[in-house]
Amino acid sequence: MTDNSNNHAAGKPLNRAGHARRDALKFGSVATLGAILGGGALLGHATPVLAQAGSKAELAPNEPLNILIVNYDGGTLLDFAGPSEIFHRLPNTNVRYASLNGGNVTLEFGVVYGKTERLADIEQTDLILVPGGSDLSVPMRPEYQAQIRRLAEGAKHVTSVCNGSLVLAATGILNGKRSACHWAFINKLSEYGAIGVPDRFVEDDNGRFMSGGGVTAGIDFALRVAAKMRGQQAAEFTQLVIEYDPAPPFHSGHPRDARPEVIAMVDKELPGASRGLARVPGVR
Amino acid sequence: MTDNSNNHAAGKPLNRAGHARRDALKFGSVATLGAILGGGALLGHATPVLAQAGSKAELAPNEPLNILIVNYDGGTLLDFAGPSEIFHRLPNTNVRYASLNGGNVTLEFGVVYGKTERLADIEQTDLILVPGGSDLSVPMRPEYQAQIRRLAEGAKHVTSVCNGSLVLAATGILNGKRSACHWAFINKLSEYGAIGVPDRFVEDDNGRFMSGGGVTAGIDFALRVAAKMRGQQAAEFTQLVIEYDPAPPFHSGHPRDARPEVIAMVDKELPGASRGLARVPGVR
Repeated sequence: MTDNSNNHAAGKPLNRAGHARRDALKFGSVATLGAILGGGALLGHATPVLAQAGSKAELAPNEPLNILIVNYDGGTLLDFAGPSEIFHRLPNTNVRYASLNGGNVTLEFGVVYGKTERLADIEQTDLILVPGGSDLSVPMRPEYQAQIRRLAEGAKHVTSVCNGSLVLAATGILNGKRSACHWAFINKLSEYGAIGVPDRFVEDDNGRFMSGGGVTAGIDFALRVAAKMRGQQAAEFTQLVIEYDPAPPFHSGHPRDARPEVIAMVDKELPGASRGLARVPGVR
Repeated sequence: MTDNSNNHAAGKPLNRAGHARRDALKFGSVATLGAILGGGALLGHATPVLAQAGSKAELAPNEPLNILIVNYDGGTLLDFAGPSEIFHRLPNTNVRYASLNGGNVTLEFGVVYGKTERLADIEQTDLILVPGGSDLSVPMRPEYQAQIRRLAEGAKHVTSVCNGSLVLAATGILNGKRSACHWAFINKLSEYGAIGVPDRFVEDDNGRFMSGGGVTAGIDFALRVAAKMRGQQAAEFTQLVIEYDPAPPFHSGHPRDARPEVIAMVDKELPGASRGLARVPGVR
């Protein structure tokens, strides 16, 4: 479970078409990871960076890991469905879901996510994850904020996906900390005292704070968290089980790639998005 | 909404680091898409293939589109969470969820997905999606199969993600049809009369049948379906909103890339997986 050998990162032969995409993916990812870990000098040296990712701040896989996913009305299913799918598959890991009042929460688009615990009933968690949503007015309420602050202060790892970082930041716990966010909201973080970093995965304080970008970034985020918490091999196992070998059909996953007319569509729906200053209910 | 111009596919300049990965992604995807569309001769010609993907069998965006996602106890959340997130964002599209008895379903890992309708109460749908699961014994029951067969026969588009294709195939509707499946189950399809194709997205009969590979392939699947149903620009809009700009940290998303010891871990949990012959409850 804790195999951090470098034979994989060093590159084994690929055995079918798609070399270019796969190799580029690998080195693209490593470059990003290197930048995140503050290892500017390491850029281009895939092996040591990947090895570092697998070993740095890694817990012994036998130590139980408790993960809490915070749910609320207006949240976005896919923000936490990726992490959920990954975390549940890790060894010796317990994943819980909680909302202020417990029971069902009604996510974006009326999707009902059921049987959450009450936040007040959770004494402590090792890792807290706050996903994002299209309406943050519920988790921005003082009683929600108080529970999130309490659990985050007691957690070893404070994490978010998408604009869940705004919810965390509003509690004050991200003051002066680097954090990811959905691209449309990234520049709102500074209004809550955090430092927005436009990457797909961001960490600060040697892994005490970890965050993912918008929606689907939760998958990349969770695989990195998995490697850090349970070892690289457990993360690779999970990636293989969920067949995470992405092949987006279009070149439109980020404003730096998307066509101007497509960005304009998002700006129309979420004014300020292309300046990273979109607003949803609950966000000032 | 129906802009299928080729200026995007023809490649506009990229404006920051990551060129190699993004360009490779684009052409990697196009090659796969070309193969899927039966366009071996088109490989390497990005523009016509992407344009074809956007226009072939495309409905007028003003024609309402009804999508039904079939839920059942033992299903996998992420198999349909990606498609759900994408389909809900398409214009003039209605997404419903249904199970045999309606109400809550208990997915893999005890995740509760709530408020589904009763399958028998759905008269007809334009597109039916059957996601996969870690236990298919419930949707393989005769009463579930009868409802799925009825709705699939009446649907314009019959689709699945992951080993949901086994559930569809068991109804007989995929007889002689090409279909994707999770890599660990791909060779089980022939036992149900379908033709397993180890791609991330597969279609047959000019889009009447469309399917995605394992779990996360649901995202790539749904973006392709979105382009076909609502136009390429609507699909690109959705990709941008969910920030689908993947950067997997490891080289482990498919057995052709994963390390042998990681594949062995999956084989231990799912005997037969590396031969595409894994079994879960409900699968003979």
